[in-house]
Amino acid sequence: MSNDIAGYSYGDREIGHSSLSEEELEDLKVGARFTEEDVRYLRMAGEVLQGQTTEIVHLWRSEIIAHIPHLAKHSRSLDGGSLPDYLARSNRRFEQWILDTCLRPYDRTWLDYQHEIGLRHTAPKKNQVDHVSSTSHIPFRDVLSFIPVINETMKPFLGRKGHTQDEVECMHRAWSKSMLIQMAIWTEAYEESQKNKAG
Amino acid sequence: MSNDIAGYSYGDREIGHSSLSEEELEDLKVGARFTEEDVRYLRMAGEVLQGQTTEIVHLWRSEIIAHIPHLAKHSRSLDGGSLPDYLARSNRRFEQWILDTCLRPYDRTWLDYQHEIGLRHTAPKKNQVDHVSSTSHIPFRDVLSFIPVINETMKPFLGRKGHTQDEVECMHRAWSKSMLIQMAIWTEAYEESQKNKAG
Repeated sequence: MSNDIAGYSYGDREIGHSSLSEEELEDLKVGARFTEEDVRYLRMAGEVLQGQTTEIVHLWRSEIIAHIPHLAKHSRSLDGGSLPDYLARSNRRFEQWILDTCLRPYDRTWLDYQHEIGLRHTAPKKNQVDHVSSTSHIPFRDVLSFIPVINETMKPFLGRKGHTQDEVECMHRAWSKSMLIQMAIWTEAYEESQKNKAG
Repeated sequence: MSNDIAGYSYGDREIGHSSLSEEELEDLKVGARFTEEDVRYLRMAGEVLQGQTTEIVHLWRSEIIAHIPHLAKHSRSLDGGSLPDYLARSNRRFEQWILDTCLRPYDRTWLDYQHEIGLRHTAPKKNQVDHVSSTSHIPFRDVLSFIPVINETMKPFLGRKGHTQDEVECMHRAWSKSMLIQMAIWTEAYEESQKNKAG
């Protein structure tokens, strides 16, 4: 469904490999009380969000991030100029990530690709897949602080296909849990990038 | 209101000092779209949660964390035995943290104390203020993965004082934003603890 997306390497053997074990991934799910019910509501969310991902990513990137200089600079050249191809390519991956969050099983393949996405926000891998010259590293704190915006803006899109308010709440809760599980996975990518810097 | 809480060092000069500037703290608020409206709703939440914090922390610690071994061990001795004094002391601080989240201004003093709390989850400072022998470090991923549970369980408590559903939603959204801002601040504490380990 997605092998025409530049730099989208889901399942590739060449990508990063999370140092987390499957058991540690299960611990993250248990810690977040992420259950089979959440999996079902994410599937529902995936069906709702199909066809809306371009609009969602446009909202995040062009209507919000573009107006927040300390976030916008990470999609720009080092002198602040625009990089439309970089933005277009990473937007396509951002869109696919929404669907992967909802529709993929959270297994070893998914874990490794979330780790790879984390690495692509840090010095070892940022810019490389798109061959661009932009900031070399996005501070993890800036990624974390944007999660509430992702969650807040996601809710209206979840309500657009006629589901009950209760269903929308459940889809939104499952989505929000997944965001923190993914951020938890990224801690390993950021730690790995720190070690690379020190080494 | 709180100087009878053992180990509660809000505003003390001796505690950790966040490497983040006030400007960087403002960036986190901007990134999360944390506004004056959120501040007002957190004040409302503080009034709602006054008198409920013991029950909330009991729910988190005794009814949830206690049943999740990879989280519960951080409040126990290294051989898995209970440490009731440690738990009681840190529970009191946990309760006060709920009120601080709602009622304190998010200024330099608050920033430094959130950093201190972050450090107290890592090797440089865990266990010290309570003079106990427990795990030396809580992986940041396990902290992050528990945030959805904190958010999910908080909501019913916010609805207990007769506010409208819309007000409860707004209080909950402001609370959830604050959680991610605080986790963003903790990234610096965790990075500092990594450097200490390497140094």
